[in-house]
Amino acid sequence: MSATALVTVLELIGLYVFATSGALMAIQKGFDVVGIAILALLTALGGGVVRDLIIGETPPAAFRDVIYLVIPLVAAAVTFFAHPLMDRLAFTVLVFDAAGLGLFCVTGTLKALHFGLGAVQAVLLGVITAVGGGVLRDITARETPALVRVETDLYAIPAAAGAVLIVVAHHAGWPMPVVATGAAAGVFAFRIVAMLRHWTAPGAYNWRRSQPE
Amino acid sequence: MSATALVTVLELIGLYVFATSGALMAIQKGFDVVGIAILALLTALGGGVVRDLIIGETPPAAFRDVIYLVIPLVAAAVTFFAHPLMDRLAFTVLVFDAAGLGLFCVTGTLKALHFGLGAVQAVLLGVITAVGGGVLRDITARETPALVRVETDLYAIPAAAGAVLIVVAHHAGWPMPVVATGAAAGVFAFRIVAMLRHWTAPGAYNWRRSQPE
Amino acid sequence: MSATALVTVLELIGLYVFATSGALMAIQKGFDVVGIAILALLTALGGGVVRDLIIGETPPAAFRDVIYLVIPLVAAAVTFFAHPLMDRLAFTVLVFDAAGLGLFCVTGTLKALHFGLGAVQAVLLGVITAVGGGVLRDITARETPALVRVETDLYAIPAAAGAVLIVVAHHAGWPMPVVATGAAAGVFAFRIVAMLRHWTAPGAYNWRRSQPE
Repeated sequence: MSATALVTVLELIGLYVFATSGALMAIQKGFDVVGIAILALLTALGGGVVRDLIIGETPPAAFRDVIYLVIPLVAAAVTFFAHPLMDRLAFTVLVFDAAGLGLFCVTGTLKALHFGLGAVQAVLLGVITAVGGGVLRDITARETPALVRVETDLYAIPAAAGAVLIVVAHHAGWPMPVVATGAAAGVFAFRIVAMLRHWTAPGAYNWRRSQPE
Repeated sequence: MSATALVTVLELIGLYVFATSGALMAIQKGFDVVGIAILALLTALGGGVVRDLIIGETPPAAFRDVIYLVIPLVAAAVTFFAHPLMDRLAFTVLVFDAAGLGLFCVTGTLKALHFGLGAVQAVLLGVITAVGGGVLRDITARETPALVRVETDLYAIPAAAGAVLIVVAHHAGWPMPVVATGAAAGVFAFRIVAMLRHWTAPGAYNWRRSQPE
Repeated sequence: MSATALVTVLELIGLYVFATSGALMAIQKGFDVVGIAILALLTALGGGVVRDLIIGETPPAAFRDVIYLVIPLVAAAVTFFAHPLMDRLAFTVLVFDAAGLGLFCVTGTLKALHFGLGAVQAVLLGVITAVGGGVLRDITARETPALVRVETDLYAIPAAAGAVLIVVAHHAGWPMPVVATGAAAGVFAFRIVAMLRHWTAPGAYNWRRSQPE
């Protein structure tokens, strides 16, 4: 399998697993079948749509190739019926979600560089692509976004690390197929270890301890 | 009255009634006059602005023709003074809202087809146009979007049905003025009946009943 | 210092103080360091990014010049360490926030006029630029946006007044450097007085008093 085909396959898997996480949250919240489909689409497509609007590629990829809509809807349909089984598969879902995080931060960063954005901006756009769908899912479901909660295991930081690696490789001229695959795998592994060991980012530094936090 | 003039008139009515629903929610929530104006504008214009950003028509229609801003502000002003009367007119407002739903799903789908989007994408964009303003209204007012709640009478489904009809007619070459008018009326009727009979979409299917939902 | 340089300096100060307000809210809410950085970026950049997407200037300024990202991140880092001191500086932060409000409403309105938008639309876009970041901050942090709450001291109204002044000056041909500086200062002063005197906008008018509000 070529590197390009690998990336495509991983991107489609990413759409599927992000959509599944959105559908599962909708079911937890007691949403109806319309809410399940909408939260699946929003989670899978939200990050990429925001990225494409920012770089000015309209309509966004999600509105040009129908596979971007079909996969999340299939994921929503499967979850609609299979969710009682999935409660036991919670960790498996998180594993796939971590794969999606790795892939989407890589493809988001590469797209930003391709459109001529600077290094820092490309990293930010890679992270937005990877985490944006989850934030929109949480806001719509009236959850405080997991992204910003202090008890969440590291999530944005692995994505940012992967995006930085892509930018460095881009400017250094390293072979991108190899680096992109490695970065996606590295973000995946970083996120998995962060979950297993419950690595969290610190809250605000307080050298005075004069007020509760 | 020509079909085009009819659509224009219905679109302006749609702006008015969606703005009214936003202003009424703002008053319910105890927002101030600024909040009332903002929620009215957001509800009336939100769906169309998101649609225009996605298809790449910038600035969105709402920022090109001042009537798009004047009508929601007039609706907000009327509601500001007349809201005690409107509590008795709640069903009337829902009737107008249903008219807006029908019209906006038709115009949104037609615009998406005009910009060359595929069939499935055009349906999605039609639904986004019809329901987007209400979702933004609910999120800003810290309500769980009615769109996704299980107890809500059918709302997105009539809009999706109307959008599908428009796409089929577009590809079959049926006379669009007739179909568009019929689709708007059909969505309106579908939504009204769904409200009167309290048709709701099902929650997630549970063949195990092993956990509460 | 030329008027242009003055505007640039004030814009950068605006980025800094808006980012600080976002970081402080993140700390109040117990978000982790990632959440602090994200809320700082969202508050500082949100209004301008939405404005640029609407007028069709992509990528938005925030993604073209890296200083737009560096300043909010510096503000977040300073707040991360210095926040115990800042509790005593709460009013100072509001003063800077008022300066940002004045500046962003001026630059947002000017940009809208430059892109050919009409008078009413330019005022709306100026207000969106000034208040948008704060609304996104509040929604992400699960606060009812201060913008719409009835107990909030006047916030959008000073911004709207400043935007109207810019539009009038633009069409009357008044010297813009002078007017822009005056408008920013006037919005600043208006907002400060509104805070000191607790001026609030009224809630919905109720001539019947038949239900609680």
